[in-house]
Amino acid sequence: MEHLEGRQSVLAALRAWQRKFQVILVSHGAHLDKLADLLDLAKELNVPVKSVGRDELDAMAHGQTHGGVVALAGAKPRMTSDQLLAMLDTLKTPPLLLLIEGIEDARNLGFTLRSAEALGAHAVLIKKHLWDFDPVEVARPASGAYERMPLVQIDTTDPLIQLQRRGLRLYGCVAGAKRRVFDVDLTTPTILAVGGEKRGLSGAVRSICDRFVTIPTAGEPTSLSLSHTASIILGEAMRQRLTRTATADPAPPEPGVPSDA
Amino acid sequence: MEHLEGRQSVLAALRAWQRKFQVILVSHGAHLDKLADLLDLAKELNVPVKSVGRDELDAMAHGQTHGGVVALAGAKPRMTSDQLLAMLDTLKTPPLLLLIEGIEDARNLGFTLRSAEALGAHAVLIKKHLWDFDPVEVARPASGAYERMPLVQIDTTDPLIQLQRRGLRLYGCVAGAKRRVFDVDLTTPTILAVGGEKRGLSGAVRSICDRFVTIPTAGEPTSLSLSHTASIILGEAMRQRLTRTATADPAPPEPGVPSDA
Repeated sequence: MEHLEGRQSVLAALRAWQRKFQVILVSHGAHLDKLADLLDLAKELNVPVKSVGRDELDAMAHGQTHGGVVALAGAKPRMTSDQLLAMLDTLKTPPLLLLIEGIEDARNLGFTLRSAEALGAHAVLIKKHLWDFDPVEVARPASGAYERMPLVQIDTTDPLIQLQRRGLRLYGCVAGAKRRVFDVDLTTPTILAVGGEKRGLSGAVRSICDRFVTIPTAGEPTSLSLSHTASIILGEAMRQRLTRTATADPAPPEPGVPSDA
Repeated sequence: MEHLEGRQSVLAALRAWQRKFQVILVSHGAHLDKLADLLDLAKELNVPVKSVGRDELDAMAHGQTHGGVVALAGAKPRMTSDQLLAMLDTLKTPPLLLLIEGIEDARNLGFTLRSAEALGAHAVLIKKHLWDFDPVEVARPASGAYERMPLVQIDTTDPLIQLQRRGLRLYGCVAGAKRRVFDVDLTTPTILAVGGEKRGLSGAVRSICDRFVTIPTAGEPTSLSLSHTASIILGEAMRQRLTRTATADPAPPEPGVPSDA
């Protein structure tokens, strides 16, 4: 059973409706007028709401930012690879997935999920053994995106190869790659792979990348954090997708070279 | 007197050579082979290095990440508006400045400085009264950029108006603006203004913006953090500047309307 803390997290989880809720606890003295939408939705979804003492809630919460609301709920379910493939078939736009490796802390992961959602990624893939975070710490900076964004945890590169067979192109974002991310076509079905700041992408992922791309930074070579790297390349994908749709300007054809680095 | 903690921070500050160093403290048992470049540079710059007990260093340091090195040095000097104007005259590329308002914590500020440097900003401007951060907490995520990046603290909007008179265009990044950041020309002399997540840009800055632009996010309207917003728009400026220079494709003329929102 996990805790969800604060109005925003609880409301996002209720709206996403992916978790099994046990109960929502509201402390005495909480501003009920600010919780009206949350309480309405809880009622509609038949989630019990219990009034408890402020001390009880403080003792239960991780931080001081719960604002009088804590929910007890099952873990956010992960999407399986099969569910991901099925979901991709329902999309009206070419799939855009983000694969992250080597993320160092819960907060950066939360920010990455938040940016990924804002910039139109359809799902985030993460290696299973890298997931060792307190979900409350991930959820807080994610501003609701943790509840809504489909998360796929993978053990091996097999699911990536399956996606490539379905026509998705795997771009590895690597410091020092010759090709700039601005020069590849991200309007087609795409997986963007971003590695951690210390080790970059794993050998296993590198070995199956269709292309390597880089953000041509000034100064030090590994100068952007993972969440900022991911935001910039997803922003570029969004730009291409929006501007090419808007002007009906077809993407330039790319040479059929499987790999260039 | 401020503390600089860890090899990377101390080395970056020595290389930037903006601060007045008092002493560098190295704990007994520190890996001196890993500090060779730092010690060489300290010697060259006549900064005294003192060997101290590990306990003494631990007691002095804020965190546990100093790795056996702490420097005592004067605060990083701020660049004045006059110095900024003089610096802009020396640039070989059109100026690109970032103005941030309403940043909420030291860590986000550090990441913002890091991205700003990586993406080619020439200086970062910040309102003076918003600067209330522990410099160690700013410097750590900034990965050296705090030492190198010119920081200008402003009291009023006068320095911005002065920059506009010198031909810089002030773009306010605002949720919901009609114009997308992808559709404006950022290759000319530019100030990008990004506000905090809660209140956005101040009325004073809004009132003098030449244009308002937005990142057209999916989902919730205020869905990107300040540091990620800044990274995406600076990334777009970098893309325009690199791709237009490379292809010698002139930027399209913009209509001479002073403001559109």
